[in-house]
Amino acid sequence: MGPIGRDELKHHHHHMGWGDLGVFGEPSKETPNLDLMAAQGMLFPNFYTANPLCSPSRAALLTGRLPVRNGFYTTNAHARNAYTPQEIVGGISPDEILLPELLKKKDYVSKIIGKWHLGHRTQYLPLKHGFDEWFGSPNCHFGPYNNSVCPNIPVYNNSEMKGRYYEEFEINVKTGESNLTQIYLKEGLDFISQQAVAQRPFFLYWAPDATHAPVYASKRFLGKSQRGRYGDAMMELDDSIGQILAHLVSLGIHNKTLVFFTSDNGAAVMSGPLQSGSNGPFLCGKETTFEGGMREPAIAWWPGRIPAGTVSYQLGSVMDLFTTSLSVAGVLPPDDRVIDGLDLSPVLFNNSLLDRPIFYYRGNQLMAVRIGQYKAHYWTWSNSWEEFNKGINFCPGQEVPGVTTHTQEEHTMQPLIFHLGQDPGERYPISVESKEYRDVLRRVTAVVEQHQKDLIPGMPQLNMCDLAVMNWSPPGCEQLGKCLKAPESNPWKCDWPH
Amino acid sequence: MGPIGRDELKHHHHHMGWGDLGVFGEPSKETPNLDLMAAQGMLFPNFYTANPLCSPSRAALLTGRLPVRNGFYTTNAHARNAYTPQEIVGGISPDEILLPELLKKKDYVSKIIGKWHLGHRTQYLPLKHGFDEWFGSPNCHFGPYNNSVCPNIPVYNNSEMKGRYYEEFEINVKTGESNLTQIYLKEGLDFISQQAVAQRPFFLYWAPDATHAPVYASKRFLGKSQRGRYGDAMMELDDSIGQILAHLVSLGIHNKTLVFFTSDNGAAVMSGPLQSGSNGPFLCGKETTFEGGMREPAIAWWPGRIPAGTVSYQLGSVMDLFTTSLSVAGVLPPDDRVIDGLDLSPVLFNNSLLDRPIFYYRGNQLMAVRIGQYKAHYWTWSNSWEEFNKGINFCPGQEVPGVTTHTQEEHTMQPLIFHLGQDPGERYPISVESKEYRDVLRRVTAVVEQHQKDLIPGMPQLNMCDLAVMNWSPPGCEQLGKCLKAPESNPWKCDWPH
Repeated sequence: MGPIGRDELKHHHHHMGWGDLGVFGEPSKETPNLDLMAAQGMLFPNFYTANPLCSPSRAALLTGRLPVRNGFYTTNAHARNAYTPQEIVGGISPDEILLPELLKKKDYVSKIIGKWHLGHRTQYLPLKHGFDEWFGSPNCHFGPYNNSVCPNIPVYNNSEMKGRYYEEFEINVKTGESNLTQIYLKEGLDFISQQAVAQRPFFLYWAPDATHAPVYASKRFLGKSQRGRYGDAMMELDDSIGQILAHLVSLGIHNKTLVFFTSDNGAAVMSGPLQSGSNGPFLCGKETTFEGGMREPAIAWWPGRIPAGTVSYQLGSVMDLFTTSLSVAGVLPPDDRVIDGLDLSPVLFNNSLLDRPIFYYRGNQLMAVRIGQYKAHYWTWSNSWEEFNKGINFCPGQEVPGVTTHTQEEHTMQPLIFHLGQDPGERYPISVESKEYRDVLRRVTAVVEQHQKDLIPGMPQLNMCDLAVMNWSPPGCEQLGKCLKAPESNPWKCDWPH
Repeated sequence: MGPIGRDELKHHHHHMGWGDLGVFGEPSKETPNLDLMAAQGMLFPNFYTANPLCSPSRAALLTGRLPVRNGFYTTNAHARNAYTPQEIVGGISPDEILLPELLKKKDYVSKIIGKWHLGHRTQYLPLKHGFDEWFGSPNCHFGPYNNSVCPNIPVYNNSEMKGRYYEEFEINVKTGESNLTQIYLKEGLDFISQQAVAQRPFFLYWAPDATHAPVYASKRFLGKSQRGRYGDAMMELDDSIGQILAHLVSLGIHNKTLVFFTSDNGAAVMSGPLQSGSNGPFLCGKETTFEGGMREPAIAWWPGRIPAGTVSYQLGSVMDLFTTSLSVAGVLPPDDRVIDGLDLSPVLFNNSLLDRPIFYYRGNQLMAVRIGQYKAHYWTWSNSWEEFNKGINFCPGQEVPGVTTHTQEEHTMQPLIFHLGQDPGERYPISVESKEYRDVLRRVTAVVEQHQKDLIPGMPQLNMCDLAVMNWSPPGCEQLGKCLKAPESNPWKCDWPH
């Protein structure tokens, strides 16, 4: 925007399932604004996150690289999901280059609103990694804690905490009431207004987490949906996005702004129906490399540039937002490292289709690959019998024998192959004796060999945990009188059960 | 339409799943015309058939009555689905009054195009039950048969056959090619044109069956979808509906025509991914009283009368099309019998919500009841172990322990209750110890007692079978030289395995 015609970029990043949008079949139809956004923009039914849980997915979005490259994984055990709870020692490596750092080359102002999740220790926070502004929290809003065994999560304004969840920033876990999304919305609208007035190009990463358990909504939305608290949270997020888009229009910068909506992982169906969303027709959910874990709702919106009412079958990834944003801003991506994201500009502006695989990882284990309509599983695992017998079920009501296995099953010599167009639910493996199977296997083998030949894993950042590193005394705690005493350092190798 | 301002009625009645529409989340997004129809009309996420399979559903649509009342059920075994294969002796009772018979009071011309399915013996055919015209077949397009053990199904034009499937009316089961939908489309467009020119009010029941196994599509659509033959068939049906709506607009009668789109049962997920559609987030499919078997896609369209882009949470039923059509046409429903259909006019025209239960039957057994967001299962059954062990699975990849049972389980004293808003997949029964459960049970018990107190079952029409009654020599066969010799009559009690 502005006199030199630069474009703003906005990303929404939520924790919700593919099936939570009206346009993707949620029967409760809570998302008229997102549905309208799709009708005015481009809808992606085949869009993926880079990992079936939050932190690695967000690290991939901001670096354009698979977690196995950018270090957001663990090697403590085979094929385990890892993220950034507050006992995590690691965070985003200083060697990684984040999108806002690169956008500075074209004078973009960048702000993150909401959950960061790339490490909460001081050196990992957003303002150390290219963001100019931040309002939100470094970790999930779990709690409430008693601040003796475990501190409540701080909420930052830029580089200093302004309070903690369940204290200054209330979340009533019993009623589900919290006005946090409204606070995040106001922060977003104000930031957009300021940049519009100053005619500065901007990047806003709006990352609320109301749909993450414990799910919350503000009073105006509580009880308003057809499906309880989760639906109420969806309605509030949908309303907020409607307000953001309307704000861009009212400021007259909608024709200069790319807005992209997506989520960081599939719905956490193990949380039960009150605390999780819908993955539509897809198998299982968060934590798994089945479609329910990694396929995401995705909409691109840019009136006048992206043709309205388009459905793109492009296989897309959150990592593409890195590369596409750079392209739109006129910044070259780093040339000293592998970037997994594609520049989707030809897709967005010309409805082209780019040939590319999707890689499904759990830890540093390549679990599955999608090429075209086919998905080949090299390893299958839902969760362990031990976890499952405790009642933790990543695929409730969706056991597919031989597919949603409770032991880690290797299929490297003979992957399970599904046609995701005919069988989005991954229920009917293609017969290994068919010509179709042999043809797909030949093609996918070449893709995997190429991928693994070039792969240099990054240093794993999510191996060590320590109670001493929790959010006891974040910057700014002194002024608030909210510093807590940390226990002595006693690091251990984090236990990642799934 | 026409000078006295009468309104046309059009119903589409397909065999497809709730999840097959783009607007209901099919990732392959094959239905831009139906999605547009929804955007221009009213979408019903909570719409139901009256029975989880074809014949009883269609009988209910045309009589406005539950199959247990209109006789479209069997008493040969407990809680069994029955329909009208060509060995069936029975059909629609002469005591039932069908919608087109009543519409005659206001001079409506009525035509059915496609599958009839209310009995194929002469006395049961459409022109004996109020329709003025018919182009289509009395039974499903199963085959090809060799015409010695079993005759191919005839295709009628009005009261005489014009050929048989797989003979004059080709379906290539290997390639999936058939131009039948195009023939049915042309019949529909021509009928509409004729009535528009003559300024006659009309009722068109357009009931193609391309999405019923063996699935077919015409050459132009084969291979065009993202999910194989079923998707191709969806695209062709969607395209046809787009043409029908455009035709109404081009004739200038769209403001005088109510068009309703729905299906006769959920997707037949037991047919596997190539021959069946999607039930979206719902449990199981055709043949079952879980949501996947009975919740249907539904859209009402009437430009200028039905507000565009509306989502109605009304619990609706195919039986309501009977009552609503009568209301729109200004005809009173019969007052000598119970009519289960509601007049949805207040819903369509004022977006009201009418309180009503949904009853889920299998045979003459009430299996479940929905009131508001709650569904109480009094009996659960998917199919028998015997059938299941043969590989017939009505819930592939969706076993829910204690819910998708393979023995008929009675829960009358303590029904399984689900909240369908929070849990559309019927996976999390509400705890019987909760206040919520007790409250719902009290309310639903009253509804069930009221329903059963008044219920007078009709004479069951689907008990007897006989090879002699098959389509050996339908009317018109002589002129075509296509009469076949029937075997001797040897009736037996039909075996309905599920």
